[in-house]
Amino acid sequence: MNILEIIEKKRDKKELSKEEIEYFIEGYTHDKIADYQAAALIMAIYLNGMTKQETTDLTIAMANSGEKLDLSSLNEVIVDKHSTGGVGDKVSLILLPLVASLGVPVAKMSGRGLGFTGGTVDKLESIPGYQTGIDIHNFVENVEKVGISMISQTLNLAPADKKIYGLRDSISCVESIPLIASSIMSKKIASGAQKIVLDVTCGSGAFMQSKERAEELANEMIEIGNLANRETVCVLTNMDEPLGYAVGNSLEVIEAIQFLKGDMPKDVKEVVLELGAYMVQLAGKGEDIEDNKARLLNNIENGKGYEKFIQLVENQGGDSSCIKDIHLFPKANYIEKLYSQKNGYIQSMNAKEIGKIVCDLGAGRIRKEDSIDNAVGIVLNKKVSDKVEKEDALVTIYANSKEKLEEARKKLLEVIKIENEEIEEPRMILEIMK
Amino acid sequence: MNILEIIEKKRDKKELSKEEIEYFIEGYTHDKIADYQAAALIMAIYLNGMTKQETTDLTIAMANSGEKLDLSSLNEVIVDKHSTGGVGDKVSLILLPLVASLGVPVAKMSGRGLGFTGGTVDKLESIPGYQTGIDIHNFVENVEKVGISMISQTLNLAPADKKIYGLRDSISCVESIPLIASSIMSKKIASGAQKIVLDVTCGSGAFMQSKERAEELANEMIEIGNLANRETVCVLTNMDEPLGYAVGNSLEVIEAIQFLKGDMPKDVKEVVLELGAYMVQLAGKGEDIEDNKARLLNNIENGKGYEKFIQLVENQGGDSSCIKDIHLFPKANYIEKLYSQKNGYIQSMNAKEIGKIVCDLGAGRIRKEDSIDNAVGIVLNKKVSDKVEKEDALVTIYANSKEKLEEARKKLLEVIKIENEEIEEPRMILEIMK
Repeated sequence: MNILEIIEKKRDKKELSKEEIEYFIEGYTHDKIADYQAAALIMAIYLNGMTKQETTDLTIAMANSGEKLDLSSLNEVIVDKHSTGGVGDKVSLILLPLVASLGVPVAKMSGRGLGFTGGTVDKLESIPGYQTGIDIHNFVENVEKVGISMISQTLNLAPADKKIYGLRDSISCVESIPLIASSIMSKKIASGAQKIVLDVTCGSGAFMQSKERAEELANEMIEIGNLANRETVCVLTNMDEPLGYAVGNSLEVIEAIQFLKGDMPKDVKEVVLELGAYMVQLAGKGEDIEDNKARLLNNIENGKGYEKFIQLVENQGGDSSCIKDIHLFPKANYIEKLYSQKNGYIQSMNAKEIGKIVCDLGAGRIRKEDSIDNAVGIVLNKKVSDKVEKEDALVTIYANSKEKLEEARKKLLEVIKIENEEIEEPRMILEIMK
Repeated sequence: MNILEIIEKKRDKKELSKEEIEYFIEGYTHDKIADYQAAALIMAIYLNGMTKQETTDLTIAMANSGEKLDLSSLNEVIVDKHSTGGVGDKVSLILLPLVASLGVPVAKMSGRGLGFTGGTVDKLESIPGYQTGIDIHNFVENVEKVGISMISQTLNLAPADKKIYGLRDSISCVESIPLIASSIMSKKIASGAQKIVLDVTCGSGAFMQSKERAEELANEMIEIGNLANRETVCVLTNMDEPLGYAVGNSLEVIEAIQFLKGDMPKDVKEVVLELGAYMVQLAGKGEDIEDNKARLLNNIENGKGYEKFIQLVENQGGDSSCIKDIHLFPKANYIEKLYSQKNGYIQSMNAKEIGKIVCDLGAGRIRKEDSIDNAVGIVLNKKVSDKVEKEDALVTIYANSKEKLEEARKKLLEVIKIENEEIEEPRMILEIMK
C-alpha cells in the first residue's frame, strides 16, 4: 500500500478500503505522509465525496488516532451532547445539569470558542474558581460522586482530526459534509460516548446555512452512528439569530442560572427540552419524549436542576456564591443601551455578525492563543419578530473600552434590521432525525 | 487576492483570472504559498479542469517564472521541436542537423532521460568530448557560426514548472491534459521558440496511451500556441514499439549517424521527414510539405545532413573521429543475441517495457542523480509485423554485467510477442494537427 495509490483511487472516484483509510490516518498522524499529499487527498475527497462506509472508517480511524476516554467504570450508558456551533448557545450549561438531575450521568468534555462561535469551556471558566483542566481520574470520580462533570479536552483526543482540520482550514476544504461529519463523530467516539444527541444548528450563525445542508450533515452523522454502533439523534435547530438574549461568557452563564431558576427565554427552553428529552430517552431513563420534557420542566420548577448546577460548580472548585448572587460576577466598565431609531418589527439579527461583534468586544478569540474577556458581550432586549418603537432599547452592550463600545454600537445598528412588516416568530425546532 | 480564495474558486469549478494564476505561480515559485496549498489547487485543477484561457495563462506565467532564452539577436524565426517522449527516439539527433543543412537555424536545449524515457542530452554526451553545458553566449554564437547548437538546459527555465511537476509526481496528478500541456509549452516558450513542432507520441511507450488522449493533448497545446502567439504543429506518431532498432545512448547515436549516411530505418525515416518538413515550413524556408521532404531526403543523399552533424559535434568540442568510424565508440563487455524460440510474426514489443529493460541495463536513471552507462542497450533485429523463424535473432543485447545480461534476456523474451497470424506493418504518422 502507498499514499500515491490511495490518492489516485480517490481521484478516480473509487471507494477506499478500511485498510487504506487507516494507512492514511496512521501515516499522516505520525508525519510519515506529507501535508501536500494529505492536501491532495482531502481535495479529492471534497470533490469526489465518500461513501457512508468510507466516512465511518475515516471517523473510527481518527477516533483511534490518539488517547480515548474510557468511561466503562461508570457502568452506565453514557450519552454525549454536541452542538455544531452557534452564537449565544448556553444550552450545555443548562441542559447537562438538568438531565443529570434526572439521573442521567454526564461526563462531558467541551471545547473553547474560536472566531464568532463561543465555547462551553470559556463560559464555565467565567465562574470564579471553576477548574476545567482536572485530570481524568478526578473527572470520572466527579461523575460518580455528583452525577456530572464538565471539563475541557484534557486528553489528546483524535489528533488526526485536529491535524486534518487545520489542513482543511488552509486549503479551502472546510465545507465538506463527510469531512465535517467524521470530524465531529470521531471526537465523540474518542470521548467515550455510547449514544449521541446532536444539536445540528442551521442558519446565519451556524456552519450549515440552509436546512438542506443541515439535513445532509445530520444524515451523514446518523449513518456513521449506525455503522459505528453509536445510536445518534439529531435535532435540527434554528440559528438565524442568537439563542436567548445574552452573548458573552459571564452574560451567558448568568442567563443559564436564571433559566435554571425558572426564567426561561422561549427559544432556549424549546431547544433545551427537546435535546434533554432525547438524552433522557437514549440514556434509558424515560421512553416517552413528551413525558421526559415534563419531567425536565418539573426539575426546573422544583429547583433540582439549579441545585445540580450548584453541585457541579462547587465540585469543580468554583465559587457558588456568584451563582447564588449573579451581581458578584465581574462587571464590564461600560454598560450602555442601544436604542431603536424607528418603529417597526425586528426582521433579522444575523447571528454570525453579532457573534463577530461580541468577539471584537473581547469575548472571543481570533487565534487559539488569544486571551478573552469574560465580562464583555451584549444582551438583546428584543428578538426577531418583536415589535419596537422608536427609542426602545434594542440591545445592551457590555464593553471594557469606550472605543470598542462605539464600534459595537455602530455595527449593531447595521445588523439589527427593522421594517414595518409584521413577521412570524421563528420556529426553533426544525426537524428531529434519527 | 489570497490563495484560499483561488483554491475555493477552482474547487467550485469557476474560471481563474490571469491575475490569480500569476499570483499563484509567483507565490509558489518563491515559497510564499505552501506545498499543501499548491497540492490542493493542483488536485482541484486535475478534477475540475481548466479553460483554454486558464491553461494559456498558466503556461505563460510558468514561462515567465525564471530565466528566458532570448534569441532575438539571431534575427531569424526560431522553430523548436519537442517530443512528448518515447523509447529509441533518436529523431532530434537526425532531424536537427538535417533541417539546419537546409538553412533552418537550430538553437536547441534538450533534457536528460528519466525512467524508461531516454534524453537527447544523454545521447549527445555519449559522443566523447561533446559539451552540452556551454554558456548561452557560446550557444548563440554557435548557432550564428554553423547554424546549429544543441545543449542541455543551462538556464533556470520555468522553475515554477519544475516545482509543480515535482509536486504533481508526489500527489498522483501527473496525467492531466492541461497540466501536461502547460508544462511542455511553458518550457518551449521560455526557451525562446517562436514556432513549435511537436512530436506527440502515442502508444505503449508514450505518455499518452491512446490516440484520443494524444489528440486531446495536441489540441490543448495548439490552442495554447494560438493564444500565446506561438504557431504550433503537432504530428501524432506511433510509439507502440521502440522507434528504429537501437535503444541505448551510444547505440542510438550510431543509428543516427548511419541514418544520416543513408541507412534509414523506415519508421524513423517517416517520422524525421514529416517533422522536418513542418519545421522547414514554419521557419519560412519552404511552403510545400512534400517538396520539403524531398529536399530533406536530398540532403541525406548528398551528405549535407551528415556534414552538418559533424560540424555540430566538432563545434561543441566533440570527437568527430568516432562519428566517422562508429567502431571507436566504447563497447559493452557482453554483446549477445537473443534467438526466437518459434516461428511466426512479431505481434508487439511493448516500448515501455523495453525502455525499462534498457534502463535496468544501466542506460537510464531511476533518480535524477544516478549516473548512466552509454555503451549498454539493445538493438532489435526484427520489428513488429516482421516474419521470424525459430533460431532467428530477435534482438542483440549490449550489457556490462553477465547478471544484467541474463535479466534482460529473460524479460525481453516475455516482451516480444510472436504469434502465427500475419499482421500489418504499423502506421507511424497517425495525424497532423495544427
